[in-house]
Amino acid sequence: MSIIVAGAPGAGKTTVLNEAKKIDKKIRIHGAWEYILDEAKKQKIKTSHDTIRKLPRETWIQLQERAFEEIKHKSEMPLIDTHLAILSENGYFPGLPENVLKIIQPKLIILLEADPKDILARRKKDKTRQRSDFGGSTKILEQQDINRAYAATCSNKTNALVKIIVNREGKAKEAAKELIETIKSVKNT
Amino acid sequence: MSIIVAGAPGAGKTTVLNEAKKIDKKIRIHGAWEYILDEAKKQKIKTSHDTIRKLPRETWIQLQERAFEEIKHKSEMPLIDTHLAILSENGYFPGLPENVLKIIQPKLIILLEADPKDILARRKKDKTRQRSDFGGSTKILEQQDINRAYAATCSNKTNALVKIIVNREGKAKEAAKELIETIKSVKNT
Amino acid sequence: MSIIVAGAPGAGKTTVLNEAKKIDKKIRIHGAWEYILDEAKKQKIKTSHDTIRKLPRETWIQLQERAFEEIKHKSEMPLIDTHLAILSENGYFPGLPENVLKIIQPKLIILLEADPKDILARRKKDKTRQRSDFGGSTKILEQQDINRAYAATCSNKTNALVKIIVNREGKAKEAAKELIETIKSVKNT
Repeated sequence: MSIIVAGAPGAGKTTVLNEAKKIDKKIRIHGAWEYILDEAKKQKIKTSHDTIRKLPRETWIQLQERAFEEIKHKSEMPLIDTHLAILSENGYFPGLPENVLKIIQPKLIILLEADPKDILARRKKDKTRQRSDFGGSTKILEQQDINRAYAATCSNKTNALVKIIVNREGKAKEAAKELIETIKSVKNT
Repeated sequence: MSIIVAGAPGAGKTTVLNEAKKIDKKIRIHGAWEYILDEAKKQKIKTSHDTIRKLPRETWIQLQERAFEEIKHKSEMPLIDTHLAILSENGYFPGLPENVLKIIQPKLIILLEADPKDILARRKKDKTRQRSDFGGSTKILEQQDINRAYAATCSNKTNALVKIIVNREGKAKEAAKELIETIKSVKNT
Repeated sequence: MSIIVAGAPGAGKTTVLNEAKKIDKKIRIHGAWEYILDEAKKQKIKTSHDTIRKLPRETWIQLQERAFEEIKHKSEMPLIDTHLAILSENGYFPGLPENVLKIIQPKLIILLEADPKDILARRKKDKTRQRSDFGGSTKILEQQDINRAYAATCSNKTNALVKIIVNREGKAKEAAKELIETIKSVKNT
């Protein structure tokens, strides 16, 4: 079993998870992208964080599966930082498709959300990542909406809980606290 | 096969179903919670309507399954009053997860919705149930949104119809009529 | 494998697909409804585009399956014009339920959306089809919302991409270009 943390780009996942690590030093987060990139490297597939979305379908599916197989063995209930709906220029593809759900069996899916105008501001500031093609405020509403739909389908398939946490501007610490409390509470059930 | 009636807390499910019983005296409604609580009692698990959401995961899953097994044998096409997304402090958990869908095979899922401000007013008045932690109007929009997503995933899995009925303030009788007509019409196909 | 084009009634699917055919003369679109009606005719079931939604459930399910079996053999990756959520007076039923997904295995689901007020205006103009019972602007928001939820569940099941294309009033040609580019790009992965 596993615990998933997801959210649209700019919802503040990285910030909230960093705050969570400050509050609970023992917390360990497994970034799905890093595992996927590592797997690509092992297989000598040339790609990067921002171009991986353009890989051939079959290559992508097996990389994703192997990455989650790897994470699964890292701990009894790994905490996984990933996406529910992965944005690409060709549309959304599932971050936790059924074949992956079978591998990691989520017990809890935490979905970080934020006000679209906060997300927009954050994306504009983020010059290190190629996020300029992620669209305006209507597109962000769309992304958060689609994320909820993917969350529900994953939950109905696996009996995972879906916890939506709102990351308010300047309140990442509060969101991190809610995240940690939910994880602790779910681990105990 | 079965017919499901669902809706976020405060959407007026109880009121509409009571109106339905006045219109059609032969109607029999099976409340999933009552069956789950009965099953808990049989197994000597101490719980209540408002604390059952805090049971250990495996206990909860088997209680839910057994309750729906029970309902399934009550009639050829039982009418079941339940939730699609069950609110708990740890997030939503599925009211009709895949393991339950296999048992009851819904032919029709009726989703009752209401204006968030009506729901909010109703929840404030309801002092008999611990609904104070169910959140404000943004949370209600979220709950109704998540309900739709769960409905779609259940429908796509089982070929069930999804009928959204809006319960307008002071118009529970009209909603009840629409509910009865839909049920009759679907039963005949 | 296949490519799906879907959208709520009035989102402009027919117009956009006609524009697409002007841009790329080699494009061939398989309308699921036509195949379903053909299949009904073969089986001597009396129905029409607007009354087919009222067929008995089992009849409908087998007609739908056979139609998609037929389409599947038309080309290596047929482009299918269909619905994700089919409106009927008894609610939505799935246009791509799991049994159909297994047959056609979508690689890409294109979801055409439009501003509810544009959709409303188009529906009012369309006197050739019985669309008067499809509801006002709130209902259109509901339909587009439900479509997204069905798209997500289909995608999570099959690893299909979900591409949402907005068909702006008077900009069907632009939407058609985006559609063709997405299809080309996905075919190459």
